[in-house]
Amino acid sequence: MKVVVQVSDSDKVAQAVKSVVNLVNDLGEELEEVEVVFHQSAIVATTSAESVRPLLDRERVKVVACRNSLKAQGISEDSLPRGVKVVTSGVGEIVRRQKEGWIYLKL
Amino acid sequence: MKVVVQVSDSDKVAQAVKSVVNLVNDLGEELEEVEVVFHQSAIVATTSAESVRPLLDRERVKVVACRNSLKAQGISEDSLPRGVKVVTSGVGEIVRRQKEGWIYLKL
Amino acid sequence: MKVVVQVSDSDKVAQAVKSVVNLVNDLGEELEEVEVVFHQSAIVATTSAESVRPLLDRERVKVVACRNSLKAQGISEDSLPRGVKVVTSGVGEIVRRQKEGWIYLKL
Repeated sequence: MKVVVQVSDSDKVAQAVKSVVNLVNDLGEELEEVEVVFHQSAIVATTSAESVRPLLDRERVKVVACRNSLKAQGISEDSLPRGVKVVTSGVGEIVRRQKEGWIYLKL
Repeated sequence: MKVVVQVSDSDKVAQAVKSVVNLVNDLGEELEEVEVVFHQSAIVATTSAESVRPLLDRERVKVVACRNSLKAQGISEDSLPRGVKVVTSGVGEIVRRQKEGWIYLKL
Repeated sequence: MKVVVQVSDSDKVAQAVKSVVNLVNDLGEELEEVEVVFHQSAIVATTSAESVRPLLDRERVKVVACRNSLKAQGISEDSLPRGVKVVTSGVGEIVRRQKEGWIYLKL
């Protein structure tokens, strides 16, 4: 299965990253792909390799940043660690993925 | 596609309204309808035309208020701006919409 | 219909329990089963019979505790009230239930 995860709050990033790792471990081979979408205040986590490293280092896990949130926080896309994908809007990505059959999880 | 949005926290209303506008802009013609359900502490936003105006003014966006939350806060339904729809429970509305095929987004 | 509910924040437990009761009342016979998954900081609620009693006492409502969160908080599974079910991970349970066709609600 494929899962799209939403992370919105900057003060929940550490716990959310931990929960995604738990999800990957629990689902094992059942899991085809996880996309973790950072937006709103949580967008700052995408600039920190340390914050998103446990996700970027895993197979089948993708880190996605919301362009609207990057702009709102004055963060340059060039400052993002290699491997982070940028989308027009985090909410649009979450909705489109569900439309494609992905399972939704908000952390 | 059709999207049902949940707004629960009074201190997240401004950000949620912004995210719904971003969603509408990002999805464009792909989007048939968005229903934004306010409940729990966020219910107070529905009494403020200023808070929900950016939503009420948009085509294809509907504002929904939870009757349980209105009662809990002592808010009269008559005090709601024109265009706000009241449902028995916000959570019931969110679940029923998904059952009808709507996509779920929590802000 | 069947609904899987996620409760993550310890400070939102009382409101979440109230919302689940509202959901059960609103949906009536439409509702086949609700599974309320406690994880992250909300896991502490599962140790308190008083907190989860309004759920455990209801037909068609199940209370589920995340083992990862129990371990992280140093809570013994033996200390849980009778009727609470333990799963490997709360997030895995939420995703699997959706895969089986359950509707998702985050409180």
